[in-house]
Amino acid sequence: MTKFIDKPQDHCAVFGIYGHPDAAKMTYYGLLAQQHRGQEASGIVTSSFNAKLNKHHFHIHKDFGLVNDVFKDETILSELLVGDSAIGHNRYSTAGASDNKLNIQPLLVNYRNGNIAISHNGNLTNFRKLRNKLQEEGTIFQTTSDTEIILHLIAKSKQDDQVRQVIDALNQVEGAFSFAILTNEKLIAARDPYGWRPLAVGKAGSSYVIASETCAFDIIDAEYVCDVEPGEVLVFDKDTLKTGEAKSFRLSGKREKPNHCIFEYIYFSRPDSRVFGESVDRVRRKLGKSLAEEHPVKPDNQDESVIVINVPDSSNTATLGYVSRNNKNGNKSKYEIGLIRSHYVGRTFIQPQQDLREIKVKTKFNTVRNVLKGKKVVIIDDSIVRGTTSVQLVKLIRDAGAKEIHFRVTSPMIKYPCHFGMDFPNPEELIANRCSGDLEMIKNELGVDSVGYLSLEKLLDSVPVDKGQSYCTACFSGQFPINIADLSSKDEHEF
Amino acid sequence: MTKFIDKPQDHCAVFGIYGHPDAAKMTYYGLLAQQHRGQEASGIVTSSFNAKLNKHHFHIHKDFGLVNDVFKDETILSELLVGDSAIGHNRYSTAGASDNKLNIQPLLVNYRNGNIAISHNGNLTNFRKLRNKLQEEGTIFQTTSDTEIILHLIAKSKQDDQVRQVIDALNQVEGAFSFAILTNEKLIAARDPYGWRPLAVGKAGSSYVIASETCAFDIIDAEYVCDVEPGEVLVFDKDTLKTGEAKSFRLSGKREKPNHCIFEYIYFSRPDSRVFGESVDRVRRKLGKSLAEEHPVKPDNQDESVIVINVPDSSNTATLGYVSRNNKNGNKSKYEIGLIRSHYVGRTFIQPQQDLREIKVKTKFNTVRNVLKGKKVVIIDDSIVRGTTSVQLVKLIRDAGAKEIHFRVTSPMIKYPCHFGMDFPNPEELIANRCSGDLEMIKNELGVDSVGYLSLEKLLDSVPVDKGQSYCTACFSGQFPINIADLSSKDEHEF
Amino acid sequence: MTKFIDKPQDHCAVFGIYGHPDAAKMTYYGLLAQQHRGQEASGIVTSSFNAKLNKHHFHIHKDFGLVNDVFKDETILSELLVGDSAIGHNRYSTAGASDNKLNIQPLLVNYRNGNIAISHNGNLTNFRKLRNKLQEEGTIFQTTSDTEIILHLIAKSKQDDQVRQVIDALNQVEGAFSFAILTNEKLIAARDPYGWRPLAVGKAGSSYVIASETCAFDIIDAEYVCDVEPGEVLVFDKDTLKTGEAKSFRLSGKREKPNHCIFEYIYFSRPDSRVFGESVDRVRRKLGKSLAEEHPVKPDNQDESVIVINVPDSSNTATLGYVSRNNKNGNKSKYEIGLIRSHYVGRTFIQPQQDLREIKVKTKFNTVRNVLKGKKVVIIDDSIVRGTTSVQLVKLIRDAGAKEIHFRVTSPMIKYPCHFGMDFPNPEELIANRCSGDLEMIKNELGVDSVGYLSLEKLLDSVPVDKGQSYCTACFSGQFPINIADLSSKDEHEF
Amino acid sequence: MTKFIDKPQDHCAVFGIYGHPDAAKMTYYGLLAQQHRGQEASGIVTSSFNAKLNKHHFHIHKDFGLVNDVFKDETILSELLVGDSAIGHNRYSTAGASDNKLNIQPLLVNYRNGNIAISHNGNLTNFRKLRNKLQEEGTIFQTTSDTEIILHLIAKSKQDDQVRQVIDALNQVEGAFSFAILTNEKLIAARDPYGWRPLAVGKAGSSYVIASETCAFDIIDAEYVCDVEPGEVLVFDKDTLKTGEAKSFRLSGKREKPNHCIFEYIYFSRPDSRVFGESVDRVRRKLGKSLAEEHPVKPDNQDESVIVINVPDSSNTATLGYVSRNNKNGNKSKYEIGLIRSHYVGRTFIQPQQDLREIKVKTKFNTVRNVLKGKKVVIIDDSIVRGTTSVQLVKLIRDAGAKEIHFRVTSPMIKYPCHFGMDFPNPEELIANRCSGDLEMIKNELGVDSVGYLSLEKLLDSVPVDKGQSYCTACFSGQFPINIADLSSKDEHEF
Repeated sequence: MTKFIDKPQDHCAVFGIYGHPDAAKMTYYGLLAQQHRGQEASGIVTSSFNAKLNKHHFHIHKDFGLVNDVFKDETILSELLVGDSAIGHNRYSTAGASDNKLNIQPLLVNYRNGNIAISHNGNLTNFRKLRNKLQEEGTIFQTTSDTEIILHLIAKSKQDDQVRQVIDALNQVEGAFSFAILTNEKLIAARDPYGWRPLAVGKAGSSYVIASETCAFDIIDAEYVCDVEPGEVLVFDKDTLKTGEAKSFRLSGKREKPNHCIFEYIYFSRPDSRVFGESVDRVRRKLGKSLAEEHPVKPDNQDESVIVINVPDSSNTATLGYVSRNNKNGNKSKYEIGLIRSHYVGRTFIQPQQDLREIKVKTKFNTVRNVLKGKKVVIIDDSIVRGTTSVQLVKLIRDAGAKEIHFRVTSPMIKYPCHFGMDFPNPEELIANRCSGDLEMIKNELGVDSVGYLSLEKLLDSVPVDKGQSYCTACFSGQFPINIADLSSKDEHEF
Repeated sequence: MTKFIDKPQDHCAVFGIYGHPDAAKMTYYGLLAQQHRGQEASGIVTSSFNAKLNKHHFHIHKDFGLVNDVFKDETILSELLVGDSAIGHNRYSTAGASDNKLNIQPLLVNYRNGNIAISHNGNLTNFRKLRNKLQEEGTIFQTTSDTEIILHLIAKSKQDDQVRQVIDALNQVEGAFSFAILTNEKLIAARDPYGWRPLAVGKAGSSYVIASETCAFDIIDAEYVCDVEPGEVLVFDKDTLKTGEAKSFRLSGKREKPNHCIFEYIYFSRPDSRVFGESVDRVRRKLGKSLAEEHPVKPDNQDESVIVINVPDSSNTATLGYVSRNNKNGNKSKYEIGLIRSHYVGRTFIQPQQDLREIKVKTKFNTVRNVLKGKKVVIIDDSIVRGTTSVQLVKLIRDAGAKEIHFRVTSPMIKYPCHFGMDFPNPEELIANRCSGDLEMIKNELGVDSVGYLSLEKLLDSVPVDKGQSYCTACFSGQFPINIADLSSKDEHEF
Repeated sequence: MTKFIDKPQDHCAVFGIYGHPDAAKMTYYGLLAQQHRGQEASGIVTSSFNAKLNKHHFHIHKDFGLVNDVFKDETILSELLVGDSAIGHNRYSTAGASDNKLNIQPLLVNYRNGNIAISHNGNLTNFRKLRNKLQEEGTIFQTTSDTEIILHLIAKSKQDDQVRQVIDALNQVEGAFSFAILTNEKLIAARDPYGWRPLAVGKAGSSYVIASETCAFDIIDAEYVCDVEPGEVLVFDKDTLKTGEAKSFRLSGKREKPNHCIFEYIYFSRPDSRVFGESVDRVRRKLGKSLAEEHPVKPDNQDESVIVINVPDSSNTATLGYVSRNNKNGNKSKYEIGLIRSHYVGRTFIQPQQDLREIKVKTKFNTVRNVLKGKKVVIIDDSIVRGTTSVQLVKLIRDAGAKEIHFRVTSPMIKYPCHFGMDFPNPEELIANRCSGDLEMIKNELGVDSVGYLSLEKLLDSVPVDKGQSYCTACFSGQFPINIADLSSKDEHEF
Repeated sequence: MTKFIDKPQDHCAVFGIYGHPDAAKMTYYGLLAQQHRGQEASGIVTSSFNAKLNKHHFHIHKDFGLVNDVFKDETILSELLVGDSAIGHNRYSTAGASDNKLNIQPLLVNYRNGNIAISHNGNLTNFRKLRNKLQEEGTIFQTTSDTEIILHLIAKSKQDDQVRQVIDALNQVEGAFSFAILTNEKLIAARDPYGWRPLAVGKAGSSYVIASETCAFDIIDAEYVCDVEPGEVLVFDKDTLKTGEAKSFRLSGKREKPNHCIFEYIYFSRPDSRVFGESVDRVRRKLGKSLAEEHPVKPDNQDESVIVINVPDSSNTATLGYVSRNNKNGNKSKYEIGLIRSHYVGRTFIQPQQDLREIKVKTKFNTVRNVLKGKKVVIIDDSIVRGTTSVQLVKLIRDAGAKEIHFRVTSPMIKYPCHFGMDFPNPEELIANRCSGDLEMIKNELGVDSVGYLSLEKLLDSVPVDKGQSYCTACFSGQFPINIADLSSKDEHEF
């Protein structure tokens, strides 16, 4: 089965909890809320203390599948995954990776200081160099995941204290990372000095939680406290439960300004989450408005409205922003539901016949004819990757009788790969590259009457900067914020 | 596990196709598009002709689960379910019905004229009487489904011709039914004289299709041709392929006016379907408008808007209607996305702790705080059944900081059971009954600042009547359009 | 996957229990002990009385697979299958019959007198005639199993009393049958007037049990009481629990002498069972002795012994008999274990390469070289059907260095089909037919130095007749004891 | 679920093949034939060369379950596990070890010289010391298996050549090991200097195979060539295919004499295998004879025979030996089949009621009454561990009417744990310990008329020594052949 990505794919969700009698169940809910960040595999590790043996035991369950599939047997949560602290992980969706079961996170190992488990969201850019170095020193690799590196570096640290070991290890890696680390007695949250991926801290009663997105807090009635700062290592232990304070450490990596992944705002995060210090919903609305400023669509005459439709559900919020600004600017516009999405279509999918090529899109989307028929339609999408789905959506809308179709995108053209945790198809598959960035060509390929991308400048104007935020926009600009000379291709470290 | 219904549950989707080389795959897609009408079980029966043996063979596969689960092994469709005609069925969702596997449809039997298979959407009201009569005559029942009755009646008919047998059988049953019936050489569509449940006819290339909803036609590029008329029996056979005409027969049941189930417009059908001769989307929009007429919400002052939110996704369209009319009527209103729904939460679900009672709703819904905070919020829902979910949604919105919450419902109070195919909880569980229809009590139970239901009159004003449509509203009014003295309770015919 | 039968296949095991608080578990064990009689599918139906509703409820669970697979979830036995009476069924092994799930027994239906469930071992020879007649009367068939006929006949009986209805029904069918029937208040055991298939009665504490083989009694510490007599209908009800007496009725079918299936002694039954009034072990020993009388093998000289080996495990006991008699007759013989059988190889089996054709046999059997090398080997088997496995076993033994191989069979040549419950391959596949009964040809095809079948006369001399037993030997002789003109071929009643 | 061992459990089977186009399938068959050595889990690793990329790829599939379960999807063998060399592993059976999925073998890792995979049969006695040392050096452990140690030692070796690295690693470990190791270009077989566990070399056409037992050669038509010698490392590479010679290296460990595990002869190995240079069947026969010498049973009078029965299937061969010698010594004896074993009862098993405690044994064994009734019965078993099963077997035989029961065992009393790869229950559970080695007490506990164990001296007389063989008998004598001071308990290295 070939991959069916027409959206960039994030690398994962992490979650951690410290000091909760039902740590595994809380983690389960935290993963459930973050399912959108990874649908391929899921896992939880818990730590329990056996007072009789005066010993910590770790418990692990992980497998391919959605959170609800992996943990469908409730006894796994209640009987196997005992303990009062836990970390969890959702992994993003690829197809057929039957050989990499060992890569499912959290990774759990034993070393001289006891057990340690780790969940990772991000991508290490000096992975290859570090792996080579470690191998030369006689290290074996049991996974092909860059996350395993961290565990080796921790174990090889000359430090005695586990937190110092973690800091030691993280000071050696480059790239994007947000970690949840569980040791016998501590929960450690860590974020790279550039703050690429989000990582938030919350409080659920007397226990502490960390998560990629704050929607994971809402589901368990936890309150958002703060973000783990870029370059910060935050340690939750018994003292934290007493004092209410987590110990904070700082990684040595220089940090002129953060490189938050701007795609978290554009597409990845749930609109009900707060990311990089701001509500995603609010940013998306602004993206829609900015798009309306740059690429308005006017009705053909005063009595008519242009019909503005979303591609459910990723562009819902931005569409509201577009409509309101386009209206404000004098272009009569109406928010409409012109596409209906079926949410039952998951990963198992019978391959269509050759003569029904577009059925894949049709199993997900159908048009509402009377909304579209004879109308001048604006379709708002968050991004265009390969363009395949967009072409077919446009065809559907055309078939429903739309008079004109104007495609508007709340991000610039995607032209470059991401080395910090997003999974795009090969650059040559990107429609922006295939059409050499030529808008006319893209318009023709999509089969629309006009196409408009949000400009990079306008995009950067639309995202918050009031708290010192700054962003990585490498996939649009090709300007990679750190040296990526050493980048490993995936193929090179497969078995 | 107890049932978790907070919406009425429809009894199913039917689908049939005649004269298509890939009948099973077409049926699979047709069922996929109609998944919302039944998530408990799914099945397909095909008929193939073995020229060598000069004989028709029937092939069947059915099981509990979503369409994609039941048919996840593609070879089932391509190798087992061969043939050029097929019928399929989706069954609605209940919990734990492990003992009634035999009830999964289509039912397939062999009798003196050959094989016959049947898919049913509806409920037969004289089921008990007929069953008793048949049993007295020495008939055995292998299922507890009322659909089996039809097969016995067909087989016992004195007629020789299969179509005549079907008509004979259907003339004996009362209640709501839309059938897809497959015989060795024919596909038969039939609808009760009152037209309770929808049943549409389409054309896919040279083949003919029938389906409960027209969204099943869109997915396979079939064109809507017409509805099977109330009381009509439509027969597709070899001649139909040549002449383009299906033979039409009429059931004897008197038919003063139809009794279309008005809930198909309110909730069941997909908005992109055409039902009872009208686009569902268009009707829902009108329901929203009518609701705004009857139960407007005014902003507290001129500078403000009331925030109008939908409960995704069932009230999306109606909400648009409400906003536009409320605005038009001078009540500044803004359509907003205040609730985010997770579509990953399906049937497997870990039971929450006692102290996390509302987590069930939270795994499905989360609020967008900055949309709701400090606002006068109108929430539009299509119906309130037990009210449990509504109470918890209101709590979520309150927690998000809404200043006021006004609950508006695009249907009247549900006070009565349905005997024609919808599955409600026991009448005493209905909030409208629990509160004796007292709006003040309901308001208090929901915890809102006001509540408004669409009146029955206004509801009937909002649905189409231009083509002679008329509707069953028994669940609101208690006025059952046919004699239901003989009604069988479910318990009475269980093994 | 093609069928891999090189033994005739029996049609099933039945089991029933009345008046035991743990009826389902007892049935589970009874089926487990009779697993050898059917490995394709298994099922249990229980009856429980709901005092509150004053009503009997029936509970059913059945599926493809071994007993331990079908009932691997213990809660099925303890929570679903409640009640104090039960019947069960194991079905014999075929390959790939994915379309006949409905045929799995017990069959459970509801009719005017309540619920009724049935388990059947045997084959009805006037099935087709009855089916046609019933169909003409307007009866539908939901399975392709001849067992369904009985249920229709019971329901259509003019009698009021259930036992009378059963007798009425059974008086109309011909052929081989042993039934366990469960009604709301009774357990009924019935056996055809010829007593083709075994059916025994036992007592477990105060409860009553029936089973195809007595090994099902041993596992639950039940005592063998008697056989259900040919033509007898035995009814267990509340009175039986009080009086210790089951009511006995007699079928009307004439019964000059029984037609016990002689293959029960030759191959089907477990040696630890008592069948047709005699220990199977004792009969098999006698078969071995008779074979030694008819087809002795002499050592080449006085100092040597011939090596006599079994084909584990079906010919183990007969081999002991052969050795002891051959010795007694002056032919020095030694019982040896020359073939080792792997018991891990079940139904799932990776198809071998073309160049490894005999690997199928090798996954089951391996030789013990030092036992066979240089020896004159006698191999004892119970029967030869197609001969394929035999040829390969002989090759294995030859490869192990045997000097001579003498094949001895404890049954006559199989030349005819069975219409009473055994499943042979097509007659033209039988080695005895392929070689036209020519011993020299068979010898050559098997690749042995001599071959000897037990004669029909000698076979009949070896089985018990002291209690009026007589036997069906139609598969050897072609003399069918009843009129089989009406015999239905299987293909004719498939969907 | 508690463990149900009443036999010592071996640690595993290994298999390897080099230079075969169908390496995975051959390995599958080789594991199938060795299923008796491990039923908990199974796995295969293959190596394929990608000429285009000039690179070796490794492919792995492993899971809990029997070989046929783990590889039930044939495409795993044919499409995933491509390549011309492979190793495989079966793991022994424990219950419920749901947390140690990572421990399933083969282990596959990547290190500076490429990929390396390993299968292990045995137990490393200095595991704990090595693990501590490695952990101090900064090594992480991803499994709790002692096998992982080897991989770390290989990777940390200062040698450049892979074979030298392996030798380096193996020279550091103590205890029992037979390894199959697969590198990019080589298959390596290695056996500890004491030769505890078997490891044989065979040839299948032009390819080379290694296996724990030679029965794995028979199934794929491979010929036995030789054993890997104690302390030998044998390397198969491209040169071997050309020259027909494997390179042989020697481990440095001193080797006065081998310590073959004598239990391989008593119980573990299949009788059709050749182990430690001798046919297992021949040895077992001798064990039976020796037992008859030491512990004869005489008939009560001249006219009678004692009945000697086996416990199928492990004591089959020894029983033949006992009978023949007991007869020869003038004690009239008859080999009989008094116990029937059901081979359908596998791992899934419904827990019996309290009042049916012995049903567990009854689901496996039943008696043949007419064989045992009124007889003086000798039962031959290979060993008694906890005695639980024996007690129940004796009860069964007693219930069948045996006059006297004499229990004879082809091994001495088991009193000590094994540190070299066998899994016994805790010493205090062993019947020999519970009864302090008092024969009278054991007799009473078993409920027999006499009991006789083979003496250690006689045991050692019965096994081959002609090729310099000598044996470990520590479980009987407590004399451990190597220093085991450092022994790790399992609990200490669990997560």
